[in-house]
Amino acid sequence: MAHFLLSDDQLPTAWFNVLPRLGAEIQPPLHPGTKEPVSPDDLAPLFPNALIEQEMSSAPWIDIPGEVIDILKLWRPTPLVRAERLERELGTPARIYFKDEAVSPAGSHKPNTAVAQAFYNRQEGVRRLTTETGAGQWGSSLAFACAQFDLECKVYMVRASFNQKPYRKAMMELWGADVVPSPVDDESHPGSLGAAISDAVRDALSRDDSHYALGSVLNHVLLHQTLIGLEAKEQLALAGEVRPDVVLSSCGGGSNLGGIAFPFVEDQAVRLVAVEPTSCPTLTEGTFDYDFGDAAGMTPLLPMYTLGHDFVPPSIHAGGLRYHGDSPIISKLVKDGRMEACAYPQGKVFEAAVQFARAEGRIPAPEAAHAVRAAIDEALAAKQAGQERVILINLSGHGHLDLSAYDDFIHGRLIDA
Amino acid sequence: MAHFLLSDDQLPTAWFNVLPRLGAEIQPPLHPGTKEPVSPDDLAPLFPNALIEQEMSSAPWIDIPGEVIDILKLWRPTPLVRAERLERELGTPARIYFKDEAVSPAGSHKPNTAVAQAFYNRQEGVRRLTTETGAGQWGSSLAFACAQFDLECKVYMVRASFNQKPYRKAMMELWGADVVPSPVDDESHPGSLGAAISDAVRDALSRDDSHYALGSVLNHVLLHQTLIGLEAKEQLALAGEVRPDVVLSSCGGGSNLGGIAFPFVEDQAVRLVAVEPTSCPTLTEGTFDYDFGDAAGMTPLLPMYTLGHDFVPPSIHAGGLRYHGDSPIISKLVKDGRMEACAYPQGKVFEAAVQFARAEGRIPAPEAAHAVRAAIDEALAAKQAGQERVILINLSGHGHLDLSAYDDFIHGRLIDA
Repeated sequence: MAHFLLSDDQLPTAWFNVLPRLGAEIQPPLHPGTKEPVSPDDLAPLFPNALIEQEMSSAPWIDIPGEVIDILKLWRPTPLVRAERLERELGTPARIYFKDEAVSPAGSHKPNTAVAQAFYNRQEGVRRLTTETGAGQWGSSLAFACAQFDLECKVYMVRASFNQKPYRKAMMELWGADVVPSPVDDESHPGSLGAAISDAVRDALSRDDSHYALGSVLNHVLLHQTLIGLEAKEQLALAGEVRPDVVLSSCGGGSNLGGIAFPFVEDQAVRLVAVEPTSCPTLTEGTFDYDFGDAAGMTPLLPMYTLGHDFVPPSIHAGGLRYHGDSPIISKLVKDGRMEACAYPQGKVFEAAVQFARAEGRIPAPEAAHAVRAAIDEALAAKQAGQERVILINLSGHGHLDLSAYDDFIHGRLIDA
Repeated sequence: MAHFLLSDDQLPTAWFNVLPRLGAEIQPPLHPGTKEPVSPDDLAPLFPNALIEQEMSSAPWIDIPGEVIDILKLWRPTPLVRAERLERELGTPARIYFKDEAVSPAGSHKPNTAVAQAFYNRQEGVRRLTTETGAGQWGSSLAFACAQFDLECKVYMVRASFNQKPYRKAMMELWGADVVPSPVDDESHPGSLGAAISDAVRDALSRDDSHYALGSVLNHVLLHQTLIGLEAKEQLALAGEVRPDVVLSSCGGGSNLGGIAFPFVEDQAVRLVAVEPTSCPTLTEGTFDYDFGDAAGMTPLLPMYTLGHDFVPPSIHAGGLRYHGDSPIISKLVKDGRMEACAYPQGKVFEAAVQFARAEGRIPAPEAAHAVRAAIDEALAAKQAGQERVILINLSGHGHLDLSAYDDFIHGRLIDA
């Protein structure tokens, strides 16, 4: 058997909170003006109380509301698949398992938190959410989630993506979102994620009926993603595995990696590895420091690895990994030596993605392909060492809307940044 | 519970052959030159013996080779899902179940037969397959299947699609296929499915190492698709249903409809319904007669409903339903009154698709959306009649590569053909 499936009544009923399991408290975010620790009141204009509480909670488990579970069940639990054909091709004694988060409505892990965020906002009377999106994965996930709770959704999309990615825009509009190019005040500007965050935050602050939603980095976002690792744990047991030897995933802001890795953090026998692009090497070459979450310096300062909030990474196809900073929790785990980090250039990543798509049939998103690359290398290392090794990765999204990137790779037009 | 899952060792091990269950023998195909019934020898230059035998077999069940099962297990059994959120929105006492064939590598039901065809060709020493593709679903499925058996794959893609659908072309190339625009001998011609069939057949006939593969219409193709209905039967039983009251699916050449409907054909209490576009109303307005499978008159004549082999349907987005003819088996079932047929205009189809995508999260391909439209109308009829009714549909593919069509619909640019 290669597919390990859970029925929808086996969906976990609580999220795994890693905060009280880190050994030490995480440093607080600082107010961008005063540089003092932010208070819940500082965050209230942007987020509902329930999420602000989750951001700082020390409870080991946090119950998932029934209404959230009802919607997650549209696609969860997601399959855990053993990549047997890939293993055979590599001739490795390693066993490679991937968690297939690509089966969600928007095609990635992002709806896991979008649904929860939409629910809590709706519960506290908010009628409208604003957000930014670059490649479009997060914007389409929030659009889907807002459609489930009859919330209006306004997405500020980086102008260059708005013009180049009509499919992602169509997906957001299909779910009822209003999508506009950003920056809104300069039609000649190609835009940036930092500028789009500023547009979305400014919009939310200007209206009483609106809040803002973020798709990664923050503690509550990573909390909502822990369903991935919780399910995978159950599924590995079904497969007869005691534990994975290594859990690998791509890392941009950290939400898909945190989602699959956190539930394994207390088991020191499990290696945890972040995989990033060499063109945006936050964990492998950045500095651990307080820095702004956005380019313009409007957000609180977060304690994290950063390349500097004014760092502009090259335009690689894994748009979701082009972030100057990282989740404070992921950053702490790396700093403390509990998590490793490695980086790959784009060309090596697409090479692995094509090998995976031919062997396993699934076409990984460029972001997810970073995990595939690292898994293949881990499996080849196991072969060289003559070791059985259990490798768990998160296939965080499909590449159906990234096929032009594959086209560039196949025809030798991909820049190997 | 809304998802009914089978484990991969519950995959059926034999295909369901409807031919000996039709009550009377089906009329034979006729040679395009002599107008005499074709012999196996006539078909040998194009197809392997195993498929020619299946085309005419009277065995009630045909074993699936282990090597084919190994590959089908990459995504099969596919989920059966109850559309509870859609039901609630419609306020219907009907229960709507959809079989999700969109989870396959190429995103539709087409790989079910592509894998089998590639296997039998490889087994008989063929090294290379040729085919045509319009929208690209079939071409990408065959490309995937050929990659599994180290076969070369040459796809003649209708030139207009070749230019307008770079994503589908990239998907085929990702799986190693060689894709060229058709017609090959006239660069100024936008192409047609008929012309592309001619190109692919001519190529296969000109080389000793090559055969031709067809993605619908023929008996062996529909045979391979019966896994859909066989699995659905098991899954409905898991859901506690005795039988579906009605099985609905979109119909172009008939393969996805046949796949889900045939295993229910002997139970007269189950209504079977073909759903087609009003712009290409083969079953609802065509004539039952012998006609060519292609535009140029190179293929055998088939006994089927047809709009005439020179009929050119308008350019609707459901490219997979733009076929002048239909499967001879489907045609016979309709002629004999065992199967009903209905037709919808494109605008009503997209309206249903958007409603489905908002309620259930999955974005249907324009072809599959025809089934969704008919299911919604069936559920509303059940509501009006105050009847519980069990509706089974095939969600034959996802619409990720058809989002420009949704964009047209949302912005009022869709022609309601």
